[in-house]
Amino acid sequence: MNKFFEKTISEKTIFNGRIIDLVVKDVELPDGKTSKREIINHPGAVAVIAVTESKKLLLIKQFRKPLEKTIVEIPAGKLEKGEDPLECAKRELEEETGYKSNELQAVTSFYTSPGFADELVHIYFTDKLELGKVSLDEDEFLDVMEVTIEEAEELIEKQLIHDAKTVYAIQYLKLKGVLK
Amino acid sequence: MNKFFEKTISEKTIFNGRIIDLVVKDVELPDGKTSKREIINHPGAVAVIAVTESKKLLLIKQFRKPLEKTIVEIPAGKLEKGEDPLECAKRELEEETGYKSNELQAVTSFYTSPGFADELVHIYFTDKLELGKVSLDEDEFLDVMEVTIEEAEELIEKQLIHDAKTVYAIQYLKLKGVLK
Repeated sequence: MNKFFEKTISEKTIFNGRIIDLVVKDVELPDGKTSKREIINHPGAVAVIAVTESKKLLLIKQFRKPLEKTIVEIPAGKLEKGEDPLECAKRELEEETGYKSNELQAVTSFYTSPGFADELVHIYFTDKLELGKVSLDEDEFLDVMEVTIEEAEELIEKQLIHDAKTVYAIQYLKLKGVLK
Repeated sequence: MNKFFEKTISEKTIFNGRIIDLVVKDVELPDGKTSKREIINHPGAVAVIAVTESKKLLLIKQFRKPLEKTIVEIPAGKLEKGEDPLECAKRELEEETGYKSNELQAVTSFYTSPGFADELVHIYFTDKLELGKVSLDEDEFLDVMEVTIEEAEELIEKQLIHDAKTVYAIQYLKLKGVLK
């Protein structure tokens, strides 16, 4: 028996949304029994750890409906269909913060919730920023913040920074000593 | 106008699953226009950064149907209804790895995908492990691994470690110097 495979027996698309799709799959388990998997398909996303000339981190303050609260995150956005993650990262950085950069370095990528979703986030870093132009989506309302590493750690304490990619970003900056 | 609130005008539950629910909400945006939000409700989860006496990190190798691939993660599991995260972490650690601990320290918590889901993951750390007893769910098939920090970094390179909580865990261990 192959312990590391689940064959799809049948699948049913429950929902095709603007951002996510939901599919329920009947699978054959390694022992021959069956189970159901509830799966969210997501186009993937990018996020940028962007540090200004004065050694501050760019953050976005934004209401998040799923949480019914406002949190503070690194600039990020969804991939459009067929879009290259690096191009998407450049676009989202400028649209959300008004800063642009042609020097984004790929840091890592990770799945956010591998138990139920295929969302993959690509993380980039830059400390080479130029002035660009803010251009928000119709349904996007946000403030841009610039914080020191100490301020970022306070925001974690207060659970205003409270999402995976941003908590990761703060650790990354501490490990690299970038904001010292 | 309050830039940081979206009022729910109406909502429709599309799916009530075993693990996730999907709700679509019509919201009033800060400028008075309307939009739709596609929201996944999830019970929340726990994960444990567990280090053995010989300074190795416990990892779980497991097929993840949403990704259609096998990855390697820190021990983790979903909260049961009303379950205390600390108790859940103790339970999942023993069930999945066969090690148990009464000394789990809370490290942090984060939302995995605040744009579309309310899943909150609580992360714990321990280097005080005793032998316990493996007890897997009916639909769970996995291998336990014990790795050095160098091996963990190779697993990241190979994208076998490829999810938010585990990438976070490796950074945490590097910052703390725990596996040195």
